[in-house]
Amino acid sequence: MKAKSRASRRSGCPISIALEIFGDGWSLLIVRDLMFKGLRTFSELAGSDEKIATNILSDRLARLEAAGILTRRSDPDDARRMNYRLTQKGIDLAPALLEIVLWSARYAQTDAPPNILRAMRSHPEQFLADVRKAWANG
Amino acid sequence: MKAKSRASRRSGCPISIALEIFGDGWSLLIVRDLMFKGLRTFSELAGSDEKIATNILSDRLARLEAAGILTRRSDPDDARRMNYRLTQKGIDLAPALLEIVLWSARYAQTDAPPNILRAMRSHPEQFLADVRKAWANG
Repeated sequence: MKAKSRASRRSGCPISIALEIFGDGWSLLIVRDLMFKGLRTFSELAGSDEKIATNILSDRLARLEAAGILTRRSDPDDARRMNYRLTQKGIDLAPALLEIVLWSARYAQTDAPPNILRAMRSHPEQFLADVRKAWANG
Repeated sequence: MKAKSRASRRSGCPISIALEIFGDGWSLLIVRDLMFKGLRTFSELAGSDEKIATNILSDRLARLEAAGILTRRSDPDDARRMNYRLTQKGIDLAPALLEIVLWSARYAQTDAPPNILRAMRSHPEQFLADVRKAWANG
């Protein structure tokens, strides 16, 4: 992956740099689907709750691949089908996603399962270790 | 604050709900400026590094106020000037912002001061306690 040159960035602020990747939100939902829902293929991702348009999905997958957050590989069982998988850089977004979930669930009525929220809140380190382990084994 | 009705949301996912607030990224940069840089006024916010356009700044400040993330009050020393301050809901975004900073600084070359990054990485709880304390005293 070629890093975006510093000159083309809005600023050197780490938050601003992250937002340039996750700008309109769709990209972070794709990361969520790969990380927590175990989705892998284009059609699975296109079927997610928020009903992302397929042209936007294609564009965001390409951007996430260019940013080194996911990789695209042929399915071992069906070479015509592509599988999308998070890289280490992508998996390392888990702590930020966990904090976003906890904040949102504290202040809004969400569909997040209460037992998952309890696990995230009470034992965040264990929750994150489980995510990383599931990913390593998947 | 009137909560957004569930029906008008993209989905009930907590991450999606948060992204509907911080959609295009500008809102989260405003939260950052209030939280970490101690900015308070419209002109201070408009002067921040990313050079947000004033019409977008006005719009995002109004949205953040409607979402209960900040309040707008007259300056005690100059009633014509408005001060913007985070609410508890806004301050509670600090853990998510901290994780975004750490992720970004791990994978990109940023302007984040190394001593601040070290404090965030080694003692996140202390860092967050200091942010909350500074806010309570400010």
